[in-house]
Amino acid sequence: MIVEPFRLESGLVRLLDQSRLPEEEAWIEVRDADAMVEAIAALRVRGAPAIGIAAALALAVEAERAGGGGEADRLARLERAAAALAAARPTAVNLARAVDRVMRVARSGGDSAAVRGEALALWEEDRAASRAMASLGADLFATERRFLTHCHTGGLATGGGGTALGVILELHRRRGGAIEVWATETRPLLQGARLTMWELGRAGIPARLLVDSAAAHIVRTRGIQGVLVGADRIARNGDVANKIGTLALALAAHSSGIPFVVVAPESTVDPGTPDGGRISIEQRDPREVTHLKQVATASPGGGVENPAFDVTPSELVTAIVTERGARRGPGYDFGSG
Amino acid sequence: MIVEPFRLESGLVRLLDQSRLPEEEAWIEVRDADAMVEAIAALRVRGAPAIGIAAALALAVEAERAGGGGEADRLARLERAAAALAAARPTAVNLARAVDRVMRVARSGGDSAAVRGEALALWEEDRAASRAMASLGADLFATERRFLTHCHTGGLATGGGGTALGVILELHRRRGGAIEVWATETRPLLQGARLTMWELGRAGIPARLLVDSAAAHIVRTRGIQGVLVGADRIARNGDVANKIGTLALALAAHSSGIPFVVVAPESTVDPGTPDGGRISIEQRDPREVTHLKQVATASPGGGVENPAFDVTPSELVTAIVTERGARRGPGYDFGSG
Repeated sequence: MIVEPFRLESGLVRLLDQSRLPEEEAWIEVRDADAMVEAIAALRVRGAPAIGIAAALALAVEAERAGGGGEADRLARLERAAAALAAARPTAVNLARAVDRVMRVARSGGDSAAVRGEALALWEEDRAASRAMASLGADLFATERRFLTHCHTGGLATGGGGTALGVILELHRRRGGAIEVWATETRPLLQGARLTMWELGRAGIPARLLVDSAAAHIVRTRGIQGVLVGADRIARNGDVANKIGTLALALAAHSSGIPFVVVAPESTVDPGTPDGGRISIEQRDPREVTHLKQVATASPGGGVENPAFDVTPSELVTAIVTERGARRGPGYDFGSG
Repeated sequence: MIVEPFRLESGLVRLLDQSRLPEEEAWIEVRDADAMVEAIAALRVRGAPAIGIAAALALAVEAERAGGGGEADRLARLERAAAALAAARPTAVNLARAVDRVMRVARSGGDSAAVRGEALALWEEDRAASRAMASLGADLFATERRFLTHCHTGGLATGGGGTALGVILELHRRRGGAIEVWATETRPLLQGARLTMWELGRAGIPARLLVDSAAAHIVRTRGIQGVLVGADRIARNGDVANKIGTLALALAAHSSGIPFVVVAPESTVDPGTPDGGRISIEQRDPREVTHLKQVATASPGGGVENPAFDVTPSELVTAIVTERGARRGPGYDFGSG
């Protein structure tokens, strides 16, 4: 079962509050753009594709509410809403892109039904991309059924079934359930422990959680048959920037001779970046490493390294799957290929 | 500066309460065997060598207190103390061994001074082994000054300067301080974040903390010149069982062509185990992974893998250093060798 984190209803967006997961599955009602700005800023909705769709849906609700006024008033109201939404998290490129796309329809005279239609079309394209990635990724595995994954790459972060986790859900569907998954907790922010384990539980897929450093041991001793991860950015030569810890998993897969597969939308492929060495790595707040939910976890006063992601060289990548197809790397000959 | 976690004074052992580190550096006074049993059971003193020495010192204090009675009473009192100490943590072989050794002196008629002498001799042998490991390990590195280490292998866990961290302290001494260290936090119990970072801070060595999964990235991008770890057990063929996460570090070092050095006392070498495949891996409490200091960190209800250690195959080990010497592996040609 694919978990979608929002629903567009009449006059409102119903939104799964991800900031309260996994302790609580709470759906909130978002009735205007301001409420969606708050939801995006407070990480009630997260993941670049999901944020873009959420903003588009908020514009659809605003257009519906503005229906009674004159055209100029209506557009002015939508422009204010669009500016606020686009600024809710300024670094997410999908957000600005989604807002722009829906606003082009409004600015060219589209009525509330047209705005709503554009928002839903944008969402549907994302769903279709997720379905394509899931299907193409699953095609790579003829018989394998034991997988390890990292961070959170499921439907909560996208408008569809997700990327790497979407492939796992598709394999679960195709095989009638004979899939087992090992999920890394993904320090420092524990997206694997909190969100991936929650989605796998919802899907009824047997899953085991491990600390990140146990992955190499688990790959060697539990008969893991594939490692599946997402990507933040893919360089022209196939080097992959993804959540910190991905490189260690690629080395573990390589040393055990199992496939290491990257699943990501075509939009993450960046032909302007020749190789991974040109990708600058964001260093995040040291407190993410030294504290967990306000509890100190480390000796105070020392230095901290907190790189948000790492770069896996293309020679360790068996295949990259996007919605357009699977590019095979040098690492492994898929039996089904 | 080497941190020793206890001091033997007249009628008492002064003990650094490690269960309160790193938040607080509290020294407690242990005045009899019962108090030491409590301290061992409550992890106020931890690390197999340190526990053995702490028990031996407690017997010295008991012998001193029993000095006024008759010989039979005195020995009976010591036997009761020895039994309680040996049972304080039944799986630590050093504990039973240390208690036996000191009791042999008492049973053969040794007075309180002889018992005290034996306890101090045992401690001094451990110090000497640590010094030898530190010196032999440091000899491997002619010019290298940037090291990564895992878990806690410092003086708090031993009677001397520790194993892998002892080598780093010795290099710091030899080079007049030009050493930099990166320390993994070491999930699930965070010994690196809590204890290694504390010891490095006390020693005045610049140190940076990282989440375990960042190690491969840090090795590749920060010019790390050596990875130093301890060992729980070393098989006859050189395979090394050590804290979970060690295998991933060995793979990272191997892929970057830097030395991966294991530092451990000769007592961890087990000629009766032909290779690492014969070492059974303890699975620990799932709560260590799903909770941190009583705070839930994971989605409830899923499965958990919590292996306490992993096995690094000998082909990834550059050298094994014990107090008797350094055995070179196939992985790397030390410049200084």
